[in-house]
Amino acid sequence: MSLLSYLDYAGIALFAATGALAASRKQLDMIGFLFFAVVTGLGGGTVRDIVLGRVPVFWVLNPDYILICCAIGAVVFFTAHLVESRYRLLIWLDAIGLSAYCVMGAAKGLAATGSPTIAIVTGTLTASLGGVLRDLLANEPSVLLRPEIYITAALVGAAVFTGANEFGVPLYLASGIGALAAFAIRGGALYFGWTFPTYRHKPGRHPDEVM
Amino acid sequence: MSLLSYLDYAGIALFAATGALAASRKQLDMIGFLFFAVVTGLGGGTVRDIVLGRVPVFWVLNPDYILICCAIGAVVFFTAHLVESRYRLLIWLDAIGLSAYCVMGAAKGLAATGSPTIAIVTGTLTASLGGVLRDLLANEPSVLLRPEIYITAALVGAAVFTGANEFGVPLYLASGIGALAAFAIRGGALYFGWTFPTYRHKPGRHPDEVM
Amino acid sequence: MSLLSYLDYAGIALFAATGALAASRKQLDMIGFLFFAVVTGLGGGTVRDIVLGRVPVFWVLNPDYILICCAIGAVVFFTAHLVESRYRLLIWLDAIGLSAYCVMGAAKGLAATGSPTIAIVTGTLTASLGGVLRDLLANEPSVLLRPEIYITAALVGAAVFTGANEFGVPLYLASGIGALAAFAIRGGALYFGWTFPTYRHKPGRHPDEVM
Repeated sequence: MSLLSYLDYAGIALFAATGALAASRKQLDMIGFLFFAVVTGLGGGTVRDIVLGRVPVFWVLNPDYILICCAIGAVVFFTAHLVESRYRLLIWLDAIGLSAYCVMGAAKGLAATGSPTIAIVTGTLTASLGGVLRDLLANEPSVLLRPEIYITAALVGAAVFTGANEFGVPLYLASGIGALAAFAIRGGALYFGWTFPTYRHKPGRHPDEVM
Repeated sequence: MSLLSYLDYAGIALFAATGALAASRKQLDMIGFLFFAVVTGLGGGTVRDIVLGRVPVFWVLNPDYILICCAIGAVVFFTAHLVESRYRLLIWLDAIGLSAYCVMGAAKGLAATGSPTIAIVTGTLTASLGGVLRDLLANEPSVLLRPEIYITAALVGAAVFTGANEFGVPLYLASGIGALAAFAIRGGALYFGWTFPTYRHKPGRHPDEVM
Repeated sequence: MSLLSYLDYAGIALFAATGALAASRKQLDMIGFLFFAVVTGLGGGTVRDIVLGRVPVFWVLNPDYILICCAIGAVVFFTAHLVESRYRLLIWLDAIGLSAYCVMGAAKGLAATGSPTIAIVTGTLTASLGGVLRDLLANEPSVLLRPEIYITAALVGAAVFTGANEFGVPLYLASGIGALAAFAIRGGALYFGWTFPTYRHKPGRHPDEVM
């Protein structure tokens, strides 16, 4: 199995675990765990396949992906209480999943269209949509709205992979450095609290209109 | 018209009615009723068709589905005040719609792929997504986050239909018992207050991190 | 370039600008601006293409659309503070974007299916989904739930374009009057505060159940 296939399964499995952890934070029942694991694990890749015109989508062609997500949901249901901080575990698993998923997304976008721009966009979308869907369904504040470096990590990972590929770097190496680049940025942001300068409001005449 | 076709129209019409009832609870105008009726009635089936690669989706091929949803939205606009408890009506219509929709979704998944796993997943997704979309757009707490048996009913209905089909039970009979199984479970959960054991938090060292 | 192409780019660019303005109201960083610009600018058209079976979707076939949205997101990042009321600017840009997008959506629906009903539905969906997605991701109350004339404007614009087309009016003229009709209604609603009669609750016996 190639490194890309490993990244594919790793990204899906890790996002599925974050979905199940979100379900544990909401104290759902077993079926709720499975639902969140499936939607979070497969959501980003589903949108990627659809916009690229690769339908039926990947998990319809290979139902193993669904079974993997369900198995992970069940394992988390029975083991999540062993973890000291489920939230910290969730964000770190999410960081590794993001790194794997952004490279896979870029690779599929590149294979389908040959366009580096599309590869970067599908990589970024793929890696961030699973978490966005999870937060939306769990009714938690989306990571999009926190002043954190999240989408940027996916964007850089996808761009590094795509750029390395354009320069003729072998696929397994390009995948590896793309995933590492994404993880270095997201992990650094989590560990050191890195942020970008955010938009600063200079109040106009009606500041009450600016929420 | 076959029993499956009846279930198809029934599921769509009932979900459209629940969408319009949600619009009535938000005191929207007539167009808001039509929008919620269309999105709730057609949402689940739209996602089902897209992931299966059956595009253009069903209501693009047959616009009658849109007109049915609009007609129901209009009827609800003028009659919802006659109902004593619109919320109770909504959840019971939703229960019947769920039962019809999960069998239809499984039947379409089976027809498109031949895979029982996919049939069960598309049946479950189809039946639950309309209500999830309705709650998301109406900014109400999603049924996903309530400790209720909801997705499970769709899952069982889809599985019973798919299993019966595998064992050679005729289509109309498999459809009927699948829908009845789903309704028995969802109806029982509503009437008797059945729930599953939910995940119970055993606090770790930082309980404030666990929301 | 035809009037339809102008409307296409105009609708996308204006919605991208409203997405970036929403990001400014949430005080996101530059990447957050780009993400909101891309999702709001391209979201409605993406759903339109998918349900019509036109995949890969338009921006995969022509990545310029993505670059336009990113450029607009960057411009807004550096200039939004110059605007006195960013919220007022957002809703007026949204009104013009809505007018352009509903005609484009109807034109694409008509070209793909030949059905006036589908044309009106895709026009309405296309024009309203970008804003709905933006509000959902930004965790702001959706325009759907406000007693405002919004979807109606998109519906009328799409219907006027489609009707004019059916009566043999040349394409550029039909596009123009469709867009003007939509803008007249949405602009009037914003300027004069027009609303439709909303659903009025006549309380039943359990008013506490009716939220």
